[in-house]
Amino acid sequence: MSTPQLVPVRRALLSVSDKAGLIDLGRRLAAKGIELLSTGGSAKALREAGIKVTDVSDVTGFPEIMDGRVKTLHPKVHGGLLGRRGTDDAVMAELGIAPIDLLVLNLYPFESTVARPDCTLEQAIENIDIGGPAMLRSAAKNWNDVGVLTSPDQYESALTEIESQGGLSRTTRFKLAVAAFNNVSSYDGAISDYLSGLELNDTQDTIAGHAAFPGQVNGRFVKLMDLRYGENPHQQAAFYRDLHPAPGTLATFRQLQGKELSFNNIADADAAWECVRSFVKPACVIVKHANPCGVAVSLDGIGKAYDLAFQTDPTSAFGGIIAFNREVDEATARAIVERQFVEVVLAPGYADEALKAFSRKGNVRVLVIPLPTDGSLLHAHPGNISKRVGSGLLIQSADTGMIGADDLKIVTRRAPTEAQIHDLIFAWKVAKFVKSNAIVYARDRQTIGIGAGQMSRVYSAKIAGIKAADEKLEVRGSVMASDAFFPFRDGIDAAAAAGISAVIQPGGSMRDAEVIAAADEHDMAMVFTGMRHFRH
Amino acid sequence: MSTPQLVPVRRALLSVSDKAGLIDLGRRLAAKGIELLSTGGSAKALREAGIKVTDVSDVTGFPEIMDGRVKTLHPKVHGGLLGRRGTDDAVMAELGIAPIDLLVLNLYPFESTVARPDCTLEQAIENIDIGGPAMLRSAAKNWNDVGVLTSPDQYESALTEIESQGGLSRTTRFKLAVAAFNNVSSYDGAISDYLSGLELNDTQDTIAGHAAFPGQVNGRFVKLMDLRYGENPHQQAAFYRDLHPAPGTLATFRQLQGKELSFNNIADADAAWECVRSFVKPACVIVKHANPCGVAVSLDGIGKAYDLAFQTDPTSAFGGIIAFNREVDEATARAIVERQFVEVVLAPGYADEALKAFSRKGNVRVLVIPLPTDGSLLHAHPGNISKRVGSGLLIQSADTGMIGADDLKIVTRRAPTEAQIHDLIFAWKVAKFVKSNAIVYARDRQTIGIGAGQMSRVYSAKIAGIKAADEKLEVRGSVMASDAFFPFRDGIDAAAAAGISAVIQPGGSMRDAEVIAAADEHDMAMVFTGMRHFRH
Repeated sequence: MSTPQLVPVRRALLSVSDKAGLIDLGRRLAAKGIELLSTGGSAKALREAGIKVTDVSDVTGFPEIMDGRVKTLHPKVHGGLLGRRGTDDAVMAELGIAPIDLLVLNLYPFESTVARPDCTLEQAIENIDIGGPAMLRSAAKNWNDVGVLTSPDQYESALTEIESQGGLSRTTRFKLAVAAFNNVSSYDGAISDYLSGLELNDTQDTIAGHAAFPGQVNGRFVKLMDLRYGENPHQQAAFYRDLHPAPGTLATFRQLQGKELSFNNIADADAAWECVRSFVKPACVIVKHANPCGVAVSLDGIGKAYDLAFQTDPTSAFGGIIAFNREVDEATARAIVERQFVEVVLAPGYADEALKAFSRKGNVRVLVIPLPTDGSLLHAHPGNISKRVGSGLLIQSADTGMIGADDLKIVTRRAPTEAQIHDLIFAWKVAKFVKSNAIVYARDRQTIGIGAGQMSRVYSAKIAGIKAADEKLEVRGSVMASDAFFPFRDGIDAAAAAGISAVIQPGGSMRDAEVIAAADEHDMAMVFTGMRHFRH
Repeated sequence: MSTPQLVPVRRALLSVSDKAGLIDLGRRLAAKGIELLSTGGSAKALREAGIKVTDVSDVTGFPEIMDGRVKTLHPKVHGGLLGRRGTDDAVMAELGIAPIDLLVLNLYPFESTVARPDCTLEQAIENIDIGGPAMLRSAAKNWNDVGVLTSPDQYESALTEIESQGGLSRTTRFKLAVAAFNNVSSYDGAISDYLSGLELNDTQDTIAGHAAFPGQVNGRFVKLMDLRYGENPHQQAAFYRDLHPAPGTLATFRQLQGKELSFNNIADADAAWECVRSFVKPACVIVKHANPCGVAVSLDGIGKAYDLAFQTDPTSAFGGIIAFNREVDEATARAIVERQFVEVVLAPGYADEALKAFSRKGNVRVLVIPLPTDGSLLHAHPGNISKRVGSGLLIQSADTGMIGADDLKIVTRRAPTEAQIHDLIFAWKVAKFVKSNAIVYARDRQTIGIGAGQMSRVYSAKIAGIKAADEKLEVRGSVMASDAFFPFRDGIDAAAAAGISAVIQPGGSMRDAEVIAAADEHDMAMVFTGMRHFRH
């Protein structure tokens, strides 16, 4: 089908829930001699601004009925939106259907309605717009002849085109149609998510509860960027973000300098960021291959924390991802670029001089992620996370579990000292972000050895010890964290042999008694958290 | 709002793309004295079967126009669907809107249209149904008073209710409304996925290509089951599957016996299954904590393969997941239950006697996943996989890369023997499924030591050697696979010290020359694959 590059706009239908920019839009369209149709609140607002509008009910000759449930669901409206200029002209003329060349319509976000804690089933259902999505879909389907605006941020460029050329170009119309279908899909996805998660009371009259997981989930992700390749060069990849990203999360990043992010950069950056934001005090986390390879907290600031984190495993830190939970100062930035090859740096902010220091190594990717300093976002946000398996999806609530000194249950004869308690909690937080089975040795809030990703726990303990020895870090006096319980005493024996003086672990093994006896034998302190942190 | 538990059905509108069950449905509804409205092909089919139907255009008094683009978008139809019985009776009577109590409508799957390789933009757009989704949404919104059927498999139970009680219960109507909204969301999601991935030619007339990744992706997943908890007991979780799962994938499993699957069971089962189906010969894969801890291939069958896989690391195999790529026979089933604690067994089939053997350990989860023996599904299906990061989603094409003997580039003075080539390719396939950095030692198609999940490659090599020694498995004469290149010669030196005789790795390091020289020094054979297999 050959179609006009430019469709002149003579008639527009405006019906918006978000009134931003509406008056300016109406005025400028009217100034171009475009006839405006409208309904309800939009018509009222336009009229109050002195702009002439025709009511849709005057077009349809049918009253708005059922409290607004039925007003635009009429062939005069949909024929006007769907009629193919050229092909359908005769029938449109015969039936008195005037073409509508531009639809301006946005939907009241369904998520906002149902997010209200007191939202009843009746209110949720009443809020489901029928006429709006139908018009959006008609206009978008007929993009050959019709333009459709779904968001105020599209108005200005559309107006510019209309004012300069009298209509919208073909490229613009297609882009707008895609945006409209994306919008409708997101809207219907939100309804499906909500309704398929409802649990009603016995008479199906009121909401008895919300299932933790709905019967159907409709993921809605917007592409941020194509990536050069995936986890490996022979895989293609792209990076998407949620329609509504949570503040403080990786997807809200802004890149200040450096090469394009890679798939593995993004995955590792997420691990580093989620780990570092779990600390309240100034902290540094270095990640390599999805695992922390060095973590430290220092009251002397992030510069000192970086030095300590780097010491844990300088070999692995080479080409790593470095994350901070404080603004990066000049000295720290200099220390990094002078000492090591780094792929990505993440922080909630940077001093100007720090950025200048990074700019001398132009390839380093420097990302900023706004993070309020009030502590409100210091922990992972409590959304759901998912893991893809063959044609399936595992969805779980995020692991937001965290323990404090008061939650620790001392199970050995010897109790940990206050300094040990600080180290135990530090090591425990790190272990949460190390791939299971995870063993973390730490002293003075510095990781001394990290044993990651083993199929049996005793090997993770061995690795932590080997790594500490290889880096000549003193294990004696260190503490050990284990992300899950010790099934046997061998892990404790290995740790004692390496010089570990205190242990934190969930407890809960059938052989806890044996494990506790081992710790007592070695005169170690051991505390149970009652909480496991597998992370695979 | 108090609403009737039962809504009598007096009038039904039928408009289906899938004609299955339509005639029986129409006949049985008509037999109950229900007036049938219909359009197009559905009306024709019903009439040909001798069932009386009223055309929707007779209801609306408006002709079907624009080649069917506009036929049901009319207040007489939508008022009939949306009118609140009781509340809107007067206006309905006044405007001659008769209530429609049942809508039977299914949409032609948009995915099928656009899956045709020759589908043009015009055909795709023309295939977007406007009237259908609008009616589904109207009927579902007004579920208080209206029933909506979207799939032939809902007909029988709805008919049973209507025939026995004259209408649909409130519980049924709500369930059907949710199904309708799910259906519309899936339909719109498919349109958004497709259109937002289109690349048009310069005049925006024809499709120039499809982006590897669309501008918006709309995941659509159906819940298979709630899980007792997530990766950890303090996390909630559920398991979903794709709307259209690919044959041979985990999500197509059927559980034959055993306890409820856990989150970690499913994740580990997926790793085991994807690994075992990558082998052509009889194979066994044992997975623990998302990593293979023992893999073997045996021409003597899967019983022997299991024995060999178990030998690699009996400690880790305890409580593991065991997958086979052949039907499990009685002897193998007996060997498993007599020898070890096992969480899950997966296979494409089981002999009756094997099932009897498993039934003696009733907790063991036994899963069957149909897997054609023609080899067509022996490798991962080529879809996309995704990884969740903070408010974002990384999407990549699956790692379907695989190499054969002809793809190997011999880089050392010594060439591998034929037996070594078999072992190198075996070890390479296993390394692909081991978390990075991955090092696999293997001999005679049996894993001898697996080093997984380390932040530096040399530690993975060390771990593989330590594990082999701990299990008293002879490394001398084994081969080594590395999922990525060796950045330094240290990994080769460590392997040589352990007795490794041949190496397979991607190559591509800046220091390849140094690494090759190291292999030559140790008189090892080394081959490059040119392909990396990171898996984090």
